[in-house]
Amino acid sequence: MADERGGEPERHEVIVIGAGIAGLTAALYLARQGVDVLVVSKDLGGQLLQATIIENYPGIEAIKGVDLAMRVEKQAKTFGAKTRYGELITRIERLDDGTFLLESSRGKRYQAEAVILAFGKTPKKMGVPGEDQYDGRGVSYCTICDGPLYRGKNTVVVGVGDQGLEAVALLAGLCPKVYYVTPTRLFGDPDLIARIKAAPNVEILENHEPVEVLGDGRKVTGLVVRDKKTGETRKLEVEGVFVELGYEAKTEFVAHLVDRNEQGEIIVDKMGRTKTPGLFAAGDVTDIPFKQAVISAGDAAKAALAAFNYLQKRRGKQVEIRGDWKKTGKVKPKVSMRLGLKKRKEQ
Amino acid sequence: MADERGGEPERHEVIVIGAGIAGLTAALYLARQGVDVLVVSKDLGGQLLQATIIENYPGIEAIKGVDLAMRVEKQAKTFGAKTRYGELITRIERLDDGTFLLESSRGKRYQAEAVILAFGKTPKKMGVPGEDQYDGRGVSYCTICDGPLYRGKNTVVVGVGDQGLEAVALLAGLCPKVYYVTPTRLFGDPDLIARIKAAPNVEILENHEPVEVLGDGRKVTGLVVRDKKTGETRKLEVEGVFVELGYEAKTEFVAHLVDRNEQGEIIVDKMGRTKTPGLFAAGDVTDIPFKQAVISAGDAAKAALAAFNYLQKRRGKQVEIRGDWKKTGKVKPKVSMRLGLKKRKEQ
Repeated sequence: MADERGGEPERHEVIVIGAGIAGLTAALYLARQGVDVLVVSKDLGGQLLQATIIENYPGIEAIKGVDLAMRVEKQAKTFGAKTRYGELITRIERLDDGTFLLESSRGKRYQAEAVILAFGKTPKKMGVPGEDQYDGRGVSYCTICDGPLYRGKNTVVVGVGDQGLEAVALLAGLCPKVYYVTPTRLFGDPDLIARIKAAPNVEILENHEPVEVLGDGRKVTGLVVRDKKTGETRKLEVEGVFVELGYEAKTEFVAHLVDRNEQGEIIVDKMGRTKTPGLFAAGDVTDIPFKQAVISAGDAAKAALAAFNYLQKRRGKQVEIRGDWKKTGKVKPKVSMRLGLKKRKEQ
Repeated sequence: MADERGGEPERHEVIVIGAGIAGLTAALYLARQGVDVLVVSKDLGGQLLQATIIENYPGIEAIKGVDLAMRVEKQAKTFGAKTRYGELITRIERLDDGTFLLESSRGKRYQAEAVILAFGKTPKKMGVPGEDQYDGRGVSYCTICDGPLYRGKNTVVVGVGDQGLEAVALLAGLCPKVYYVTPTRLFGDPDLIARIKAAPNVEILENHEPVEVLGDGRKVTGLVVRDKKTGETRKLEVEGVFVELGYEAKTEFVAHLVDRNEQGEIIVDKMGRTKTPGLFAAGDVTDIPFKQAVISAGDAAKAALAAFNYLQKRRGKQVEIRGDWKKTGKVKPKVSMRLGLKKRKEQ
């Protein structure tokens, strides 16, 4: 990753990749320790955006995913965290001095002493012609986010399991006609299945697969699907194509730095450390199987404090955080550092 | 642990020991899965009670520890969790059938298929005559909780480090005279040290140790302390003795069931499992070094879901929770179970 553009990379002490609950919590914890931290992310919220109402986040009775994201972002910024949205990190290298050099989809370069991987999971694509061309112009990977924009229009859901069924149930209340294209037999929550079977405006196409997204150059006009048994194709006249095929951890670009499991998830220890010193991970991108907001938040706080201790050690400081309850109200990083230096002088 | 009292033990699917943020979150997650869960604890709140203001709990800008505890308790109860306060579990045995038999300080017995240890840490005692006799009658282990009751009265803090200094700073604003008895030289946050040194009503007794709590049979009247260098003793006329000597994990009673580290903390894997199947742990009682509310909450959610999966497996159910974001809004345990059974029939 030679500096082809000639410019110096933008430097921060820590870079957090991803702005879901994990990334934002990591930023909150680091900023609170006085660390210069930048969050780089495609968007704000990550998979939190998919959660209509979260009722099991301890301490908050009920909250929309997007609202929780905005609250944590505000907290992180209050303590000085910076954010940059609309950018994907596409390359990471660890340099000989132990720092990390990162490159984004916009060709921008960053350098940091520690990196926290918190970019969650990414919706699986259909992998058909027209899909990328019409992404955001009729093709959506988040029915909860975008469904309401298709009120009064015909739509199709290409999905599996409960995820697909829930999307169909949602759109059935908004659209005159909803097709459900699913590659196998219907499976999932029996209540949901009964509900969409009873909806007069839903047509279920089991054992069907998408073939091509059609459009007029500007927006989606239809979806060609194929019956997997007969091979017959059919054109569905729709303006919205909602893809609900599950999620995957897109971790290929860090494969040289971390261990991954069969699902491509990053393997972490119980402090959020990967196998590379200075590289941490938290949230849905890791091999922790439960995808819950508070679990991602807790693990991100751990990874952030582990990263802080890593920075301290790297700089020869002796004070590590082993924060107790009393400190939750006011951690004083500068004092800690002063103490660390003082201790060393006294020796 | 023979049934000496003849009665049947009280049965629950899961028993959670402790009602701090970890215990309450575990109960919330289990109750939400439709599990019959009972929380047994000395009190509500655990070490949360020590936190005046928590500013780094993601999603909540600022909250008193006790208020956070009450909020999570309410959530857990909404989903059907039960609580029993004023009771300490003092014995746990694993029976041949894999269930656990528990006995409380009141001689009450419980039986459960899984147990979550979330009883946090306990304040260290001075270990002097009179201490236990006057516990709650002048001797306190929580200056933040009880300090305000001693407005206008003379008090002493027996403490170390920042924990001791913070207690002195708090009482200095309330009491005509505050003694600070500390077994070594003063150490800790330089700002705090400067503050208590400048307070005209604070008398610092470095290298001193407590000898005996004095009282009139009803309440504290003084504390005898000894100068560790000269051996001289002195009687301090105080009505409040605040002990701030740190915390310890009181885990001896589960030593036969778990591995512990040198601090007596319970060693868990990243899913909150101990070495005994069906026995889980989360929060400050574990070897996770960071004592933060959101970390305890996240780890407790993990332990609860791991316990739920353990129960499912034990009962031959095949559906495990691998909750995704969409499910945070409405996990449907009964449907999952139904699905599990259905799947088995189909095979």
